[in-house]
Amino acid sequence: MELDFVSRLIARIPADPRLEVPPGDDAAVLRPPAERRTVVTVDMLMEGVDFLLGPDCTPRQVGHKALAVNLSDLAAMAARPEAVVAAVALPRRGGDAIGRGLLDGMLACAAAHGATLAGGDTNAWDGPLVISITALGSVAPGRAWRRDAARPGDLLVVSGACGGSLLGRHLAVAPRCREALAIAGAFEVHAAIDISDGLSLDLARMMEASRVAAVVDLDAVPIHADAVRMASHPGDDRTPLDHALGDGEDFELLLALPAEEARRLVAEGHSLTGTPFTIIGEVVAGSGLSARAADGSTAPLARRGYEHAFDD
Amino acid sequence: MELDFVSRLIARIPADPRLEVPPGDDAAVLRPPAERRTVVTVDMLMEGVDFLLGPDCTPRQVGHKALAVNLSDLAAMAARPEAVVAAVALPRRGGDAIGRGLLDGMLACAAAHGATLAGGDTNAWDGPLVISITALGSVAPGRAWRRDAARPGDLLVVSGACGGSLLGRHLAVAPRCREALAIAGAFEVHAAIDISDGLSLDLARMMEASRVAAVVDLDAVPIHADAVRMASHPGDDRTPLDHALGDGEDFELLLALPAEEARRLVAEGHSLTGTPFTIIGEVVAGSGLSARAADGSTAPLARRGYEHAFDD
Repeated sequence: MELDFVSRLIARIPADPRLEVPPGDDAAVLRPPAERRTVVTVDMLMEGVDFLLGPDCTPRQVGHKALAVNLSDLAAMAARPEAVVAAVALPRRGGDAIGRGLLDGMLACAAAHGATLAGGDTNAWDGPLVISITALGSVAPGRAWRRDAARPGDLLVVSGACGGSLLGRHLAVAPRCREALAIAGAFEVHAAIDISDGLSLDLARMMEASRVAAVVDLDAVPIHADAVRMASHPGDDRTPLDHALGDGEDFELLLALPAEEARRLVAEGHSLTGTPFTIIGEVVAGSGLSARAADGSTAPLARRGYEHAFDD
Repeated sequence: MELDFVSRLIARIPADPRLEVPPGDDAAVLRPPAERRTVVTVDMLMEGVDFLLGPDCTPRQVGHKALAVNLSDLAAMAARPEAVVAAVALPRRGGDAIGRGLLDGMLACAAAHGATLAGGDTNAWDGPLVISITALGSVAPGRAWRRDAARPGDLLVVSGACGGSLLGRHLAVAPRCREALAIAGAFEVHAAIDISDGLSLDLARMMEASRVAAVVDLDAVPIHADAVRMASHPGDDRTPLDHALGDGEDFELLLALPAEEARRLVAEGHSLTGTPFTIIGEVVAGSGLSARAADGSTAPLARRGYEHAFDD
């Protein structure tokens, strides 16, 4: 029965001083940190679209990913993770075990990033697994990173490396929460987005929101070793750079900073955060993306990545 | 394409001074009211379980219901609605129109109860419609109504009337937000829950959480006219009282108050809120539910209502 199942799940959630009323009531009551804004984001993952349960993709991994992608959105706002709630539609067959696995993954991920699990809604149905997580973070007033404030003259910086996430990083998502908070405390950032659907697509989104254009130095794009591995697969007709620009699910930070700040971030960011940062291009007036080759010539750069589509 | 569709949806969300960063970024940034707690709840509705899209159940109605059931949870905590976020899995075929209808219903419901739509996640898939809404409310520190604080000697009060919600109220959910705020400002309430899964089942949940027992005066239970209509249907083998005790989706408030406060609520609540309130029984030491007949005799009362179940 649901009541027993949910009670068992709730019993495994550690107490947290941020909760005035813990999970188990009609709603949870949180003590928000004083003088901070509340940052809120939601992401839903569906079996068959975002993952396929199986030996290589356990409920625990799905629970981790579902929470981590939300924490990545908080990182892209320079927000500190505070609390999360989860709603799940569990397959009637095996739903009990799946629910436990999801919770395992969520609890470990939440603990790793300082968030508390504040509540949830557990449902059973004859359909595939659906999990929707809402994450709440906090940030000082006026200090959230936006995606619409990149300016001509800014340099574009990406954390880590991109491409080939399907070889494992798409499940073992490592949201850049700590990096974001460290950078926010030490650098002036004009705009930020996390790379969820593809470096070029998410860059295009930031540029459109900011009403500016980007010039990307293709030789500078940090290519993940997984992108090289994928491109070397027989039958893969894409280059490592193609993978880096369009695969998505990298969950790296893409930042626009004043040029001097960008150079300082590249110089100091690795030792500050443990993660390397790379300048991949610059923001200019105009619209759209262009690619700059090693010889200085430019050409339009297609935005590629994952976009949902409807039939009509 | 998703980007255009989502952009069109976002353009229809009215501006709200509570939003420091409006929908359209990686996350929304809210200005929480000073000196208040944050109340958070999430509910997911799935097509085929919670509704069946058709001429009698439009996407607009589903959008309304999905938000209203969350606002009912906030009401059960005496919380003022502030902001909501929604995640949807839209059927690939017709998803564009369904998404617009859902938004229509959500926007109207949010406006009616003073909440702002702060963001969402729009997905397409080959499965049925799934919508998950997270609602954020606010309440003064220590003033949230809990379900675990009913005490022996309290009287049990229900708003409105119960039963037969399937005849329409299960979609046209009217969350008791205004009633809850008015009551919280004028009465001492020990415990509260909203009647989502069935009066007897939700009462049992409140009693279990509070580690007390309830005696229900069966003659006093307010029976909705829809419960009478359903019981009169050929083939319906339940009484109007059965429907009132077990149908659920009434989204009425069930409250436990000190006896004097309960009597005052019944006397003054209707003129204060426009909604009648009825004493249906009392809280006693012990566990479980019992029914008291007009002659004073008592018998165990089964808790009935909607509970999710797994196959294993």
